[in-house]
Amino acid sequence: MKANYIEDLQNWESEFSFYTEIPVRFSDTDMFGHLNNTKVFVYFEDARIQYLQTLTKVMEKAEQNPDMIPVVADLQCDFVKQIFFDEKLKVYVKANSLGTTSVDLHYMGKNEKNEIVFTGRGTVVQINKRTGRPVAWSEEEKKVFLQYA
Amino acid sequence: MKANYIEDLQNWESEFSFYTEIPVRFSDTDMFGHLNNTKVFVYFEDARIQYLQTLTKVMEKAEQNPDMIPVVADLQCDFVKQIFFDEKLKVYVKANSLGTTSVDLHYMGKNEKNEIVFTGRGTVVQINKRTGRPVAWSEEEKKVFLQYA
Amino acid sequence: MKANYIEDLQNWESEFSFYTEIPVRFSDTDMFGHLNNTKVFVYFEDARIQYLQTLTKVMEKAEQNPDMIPVVADLQCDFVKQIFFDEKLKVYVKANSLGTTSVDLHYMGKNEKNEIVFTGRGTVVQINKRTGRPVAWSEEEKKVFLQYA
Amino acid sequence: MKANYIEDLQNWESEFSFYTEIPVRFSDTDMFGHLNNTKVFVYFEDARIQYLQTLTKVMEKAEQNPDMIPVVADLQCDFVKQIFFDEKLKVYVKANSLGTTSVDLHYMGKNEKNEIVFTGRGTVVQINKRTGRPVAWSEEEKKVFLQYA
Repeated sequence: MKANYIEDLQNWESEFSFYTEIPVRFSDTDMFGHLNNTKVFVYFEDARIQYLQTLTKVMEKAEQNPDMIPVVADLQCDFVKQIFFDEKLKVYVKANSLGTTSVDLHYMGKNEKNEIVFTGRGTVVQINKRTGRPVAWSEEEKKVFLQYA
Repeated sequence: MKANYIEDLQNWESEFSFYTEIPVRFSDTDMFGHLNNTKVFVYFEDARIQYLQTLTKVMEKAEQNPDMIPVVADLQCDFVKQIFFDEKLKVYVKANSLGTTSVDLHYMGKNEKNEIVFTGRGTVVQINKRTGRPVAWSEEEKKVFLQYA
Repeated sequence: MKANYIEDLQNWESEFSFYTEIPVRFSDTDMFGHLNNTKVFVYFEDARIQYLQTLTKVMEKAEQNPDMIPVVADLQCDFVKQIFFDEKLKVYVKANSLGTTSVDLHYMGKNEKNEIVFTGRGTVVQINKRTGRPVAWSEEEKKVFLQYA
Repeated sequence: MKANYIEDLQNWESEFSFYTEIPVRFSDTDMFGHLNNTKVFVYFEDARIQYLQTLTKVMEKAEQNPDMIPVVADLQCDFVKQIFFDEKLKVYVKANSLGTTSVDLHYMGKNEKNEIVFTGRGTVVQINKRTGRPVAWSEEEKKVFLQYA
């Protein structure tokens, strides 16, 4: 079964380069004995923030101007394999396509056997916290995203 | 902007009847000052479990037979409005369509002003924990789902 | 076994009047099949904030003056009984003793059978976020705390 | 201000050798802009489990015999310094004293400037999940604990 945001799995997989390593915490599990599925979105978040910090310094800008924040407009995840306590996951992120004020980020999680354990995507919009309005990416930010697209 | 799993918003909204009230915990917020978006999936989970308990006693069966569990195959959420500490949300759940071994659950969150704050969906598959294989819904379970579809 | 902050259990128990009801979320459990013990501190937090809101409007003041926040200086918990998914707990809070800039809050959790499931305590200090310095309670705040001490 | 479980801070500090590195997740923060204090107990938990795995293979035994689990009887924490997103903490654990069926574990957190950010302690009891009764440490387990005491 293939997620509708993936056209060709091998192509899609090969386009990722950025990743971050995330260890599964004991408190990330639930009474079914495996990773609680809501925690995958926590992993997305950590990987996304590190990705954005690496690429565009969006977070640093947010610190200088506390009104500017990257906001998650939507998120989705397909759970491919069960994940257990003590696994160390690699969570990959890429900018799949770029809008004027938004970016469509894709996610891929792999376990230590290099198996895909989840895939996902979600739109991030840069907004002004005070006005609630989207703010366009600068030319420099676009350039950096495109290098990784 | 409308999520791709909603054809007609008014229709879609009118089909919900089950909901559960969920208070936003302080620890559900993050340093941006609002609800951390990953927590919405925790709310989905609580609403989903209560919905399944109410409808089909899936959870009780799981307790009798610890090998049978409802597994979330995929999840998605569209974040419509910011949510803040101390809000009390109503999280609605409905069975949007029914497969042999799965059900497509839809979610809608409303704040105290009766505004939609998020919408979402996700497939739940009933699997045998030991074999990892999907297990078909019983006729009785189907009947109960259909009453609420 | 009695915690060292409890002299006489019956006395101690009888002094509580404020409580808040907290349902155990599914994601609050862990792979041992019961409530993850770290979540009890989340319950303390929710009960504490509601208690402080009720008593002294500390949180509302914090919203008016974002520099003033109640800070938890220390926390401790004794886990008396196991807690499971779907239980509805009553979490009690009382001001056990009052300092110039701090208050020693005590906590007691009870399950639906009215059994004590955990006890705890912790010091809350009111600090100025900008200076990092403690700020004395106003006479009005002291009066309100003492009514409940 | 010194916690009551620490007699001499320098001595106490010098006795730690085991530690684990824990990065502060974005979702570990709260609307006050810093680490949510309940998350420190999650860090204790991760450090404790890795410590126990390293020392006595308690967790592996638990997997072979699902009835045997280490249970946290009490926990306490003194919050010394504020902690922020993106810090990498070292969380130290040591066995401060050993009972027949329990161990008193002490915790110390340090930031990248090598400053103590929190200290803590808590009793862990080995219990049989089925009977709910404590189970004595084996001679081998005691020996391993003592090497690190």
